[in-house]
Amino acid sequence: MAKEVSNKEENYALWYNNLVIKAELAENSAVRGCMVIKPYGYAIWEKMQAQLDRMFKETGHQNAYFPLFIPKSFLSREAEHVEGFAKECAVVTHHRLMTNPDGPGVVVDPDAKLEEELVVRPTSETIIWNTYRNWIKSYRDLPILVNQWANVVRWEMRTRLFLRTTEFLWQEGHTAHATSGEAMEETNRMIQVYAEFARKYMSMPVIVGRKTESERFAGAIDTLCIEAMMQDGKALQAGTSHFLGQNFAKAFDVQFANKEGGLDYVWATSWGVSTRLMGALVMAHSDNNGLVLPPKLAPIQVVMVPVIKNDGDFSNILENMSQIKKRLEGVGISVKIDDRDNLRSGFKFAEWELKGVPVRLTIGPRDLQNGTVEISRRDTLTKETASQDGLEKRISLLLDDIQDNIYNKALKFRAENTFKVDDYDTFKEKIEDGGFLLCHWDGTAETEAKIKEETKATIRCIPLDSEEEEGKCIYSGKPSHRRVVFARAY
Amino acid sequence: MAKEVSNKEENYALWYNNLVIKAELAENSAVRGCMVIKPYGYAIWEKMQAQLDRMFKETGHQNAYFPLFIPKSFLSREAEHVEGFAKECAVVTHHRLMTNPDGPGVVVDPDAKLEEELVVRPTSETIIWNTYRNWIKSYRDLPILVNQWANVVRWEMRTRLFLRTTEFLWQEGHTAHATSGEAMEETNRMIQVYAEFARKYMSMPVIVGRKTESERFAGAIDTLCIEAMMQDGKALQAGTSHFLGQNFAKAFDVQFANKEGGLDYVWATSWGVSTRLMGALVMAHSDNNGLVLPPKLAPIQVVMVPVIKNDGDFSNILENMSQIKKRLEGVGISVKIDDRDNLRSGFKFAEWELKGVPVRLTIGPRDLQNGTVEISRRDTLTKETASQDGLEKRISLLLDDIQDNIYNKALKFRAENTFKVDDYDTFKEKIEDGGFLLCHWDGTAETEAKIKEETKATIRCIPLDSEEEEGKCIYSGKPSHRRVVFARAY
Repeated sequence: MAKEVSNKEENYALWYNNLVIKAELAENSAVRGCMVIKPYGYAIWEKMQAQLDRMFKETGHQNAYFPLFIPKSFLSREAEHVEGFAKECAVVTHHRLMTNPDGPGVVVDPDAKLEEELVVRPTSETIIWNTYRNWIKSYRDLPILVNQWANVVRWEMRTRLFLRTTEFLWQEGHTAHATSGEAMEETNRMIQVYAEFARKYMSMPVIVGRKTESERFAGAIDTLCIEAMMQDGKALQAGTSHFLGQNFAKAFDVQFANKEGGLDYVWATSWGVSTRLMGALVMAHSDNNGLVLPPKLAPIQVVMVPVIKNDGDFSNILENMSQIKKRLEGVGISVKIDDRDNLRSGFKFAEWELKGVPVRLTIGPRDLQNGTVEISRRDTLTKETASQDGLEKRISLLLDDIQDNIYNKALKFRAENTFKVDDYDTFKEKIEDGGFLLCHWDGTAETEAKIKEETKATIRCIPLDSEEEEGKCIYSGKPSHRRVVFARAY
Repeated sequence: MAKEVSNKEENYALWYNNLVIKAELAENSAVRGCMVIKPYGYAIWEKMQAQLDRMFKETGHQNAYFPLFIPKSFLSREAEHVEGFAKECAVVTHHRLMTNPDGPGVVVDPDAKLEEELVVRPTSETIIWNTYRNWIKSYRDLPILVNQWANVVRWEMRTRLFLRTTEFLWQEGHTAHATSGEAMEETNRMIQVYAEFARKYMSMPVIVGRKTESERFAGAIDTLCIEAMMQDGKALQAGTSHFLGQNFAKAFDVQFANKEGGLDYVWATSWGVSTRLMGALVMAHSDNNGLVLPPKLAPIQVVMVPVIKNDGDFSNILENMSQIKKRLEGVGISVKIDDRDNLRSGFKFAEWELKGVPVRLTIGPRDLQNGTVEISRRDTLTKETASQDGLEKRISLLLDDIQDNIYNKALKFRAENTFKVDDYDTFKEKIEDGGFLLCHWDGTAETEAKIKEETKATIRCIPLDSEEEEGKCIYSGKPSHRRVVFARAY
């Protein structure tokens, strides 16, 4: 089975696609660009959701739900927003099908044309700010700290499982504040929540930074992002948090009576992560044997496989395994016993490696006699034999160690593939190998566009923690005060 | 505030609608028939989801996600299904908007017409069985026990918050089995899960029964349901579980190699509950003061309100409350302290009654001195003063008692409004007052249709536990072997 995954060094894109399918995370559906998220993939997404949801609630947010459909005219209200989102989208024009009068099947009923077309939400700022108008009258109604878990649709021409699909699942936070300062604080708070989630749960190092004007969300004053490096050296934007200023409040006339008795427009933020994180997780850590899942997001943390040559000891081993399973579950570890009797253990090993289960425990007749167990790590593919005594503690520590090791490995990879580059020739050469290039840039959209056109590299972000450093733009030679991160990106 | 809820005895429909809005559960949106589920309403839905999800997983199901869109032609594959679902639905015909050449805003780009229209899923049997064709080759791939949490759209002409909305949230289970017997067992298992959920968590008694042929799901061989009685005596179908036979397997050509080496079509079930349960919850228990929430689904189980005449003791009371809050949270009770200093306590009492919080604790200066607390129950609107000692135990038991009491009250109401009726004149008279009428029926769709036409009453179900009893159909006088449940329904 491992063979079918193909080799990531040879063809990274093919390796990724095969892996997502073979590991049963997702597959393409009969509807162009829309994927089916399979149970194993969805179980990982559920773990992501549960943790993010906890973090949102800990920072004071509540969930709510807004309509799937947005009246066409809403999209035109915010001038930049319409440019970004009103173009490639799914448009509902009719509300009825009828029996085909000229043949089999059903056809659109021409009499059921909608007065105003509805767009399937590509993002919900417009419908939500139209709603907030009725919720906000006074400063006492603020802040509103709301999040929505939802599906969204953006009509993409070229799609790839998880990374870019016509329909995807996400969460979108939409908050309303009385002051600019509070909204900026919220924008920053949430990008830090995303960064913590990526690092601590996905074991994925990220750079927290600010987008340049040309890469901003359509309608935002400021867009913060987290950027991760995939194993092919390309960047992946894993989450964004937008300071929207008063743009949407003005577009939807949302004013509030402030403490001083005057009327002000409300300040806004929005922030989101999506099933794209699933793609990032796969691409950040997996190898040619399959997925490598960080224990905190693995639906199965420990798989137990009996190793037997004859049928004699099978039931004894399974009984022993059940006891161990109970002990491990008692300390919060999720365990699966692979008791299928029609498959060789070698086949099972390959399958659970493919699925990225962090720890495999095997028990054979000799282990049973000795009270031992063989422990295999998915991340390093190493094995050791250990006593069954104190296994709870040992496995708990091991899972923590794997979680850290995966993070450190990715961090090391990123460090090895991040370079300071000071001239454009070196830039053009280096960018071919992937990686993050830290360069001076003159701050103009023109230079950014030229570099993108000539090298396909974009400015991923201006890191929030970047130090001031005097230098010259690699392209124009004009003065610059800090380095920005260039990379080719997903 | 309580006054605005209006009176359920005077106008039940208006009372319900006002209550949903005033208690901040949901409101109508700018999109016809689509609602906004507000944070307080969504928090209740989240509690329902969490519990149902646990119950689905305990019965071996996994979650997955399938596309929002269904190719139009899929709907025509199953002959009855298309009649039921392909008519009033949202049809996506285009995938792009463009700047209006003749004025402001955006218009549909005529060049972006889809080759085949897409329907926003009204239910997902078709797209899922089209997917299952690739998942199922052998009996070893069965059963497939999958559930999906999703939004669906059915273009409704007359909508009511939660009860009937164009878009609603739901879960839909879709399982595949090797034998008819297994699929029927699953159909039954899941309706029992729903019944348990309704009774134990929603405190809502339900009748588990079988739909008549005319009330079946479009495409099903058999539909089981749970039916609850609302406080106006009308019935509400709260969940359904369908035995689909091989209809969808045949429509989408899903065959498997059975143990004997032959090819068989796969047997199917589907089952679902939706945000309609929110409407049922409100209508089953609430009173003219507002919501009455069963403790197991209440986002806030205990609200604490300080009662003070001057500012002197405020901080001391709040400190005392914080300690109690911690103790209660320690035993898993969710608590909110209402420390707003700009509102009278009477106003707060009314607000938390409106929101259905099961228990209110008030502490005044004298309580502080005496180490006591006043405990008010939302369900009975009674109060008592108790010692702060051992409050965790007391409140835990009280919450259980409230949960049971709400159930028993609803059960009593149903018993008082359920009648055996043996002649049609009495039937026509009785049905005007609402309630469940247990009657003999001749088993024909004609009689059922006539009764519906003449009285607006439908057969809600044939209870699974109904006893055999010889009798005569109230309408035709023909022989009948058991009573069925007639009612007017939501």
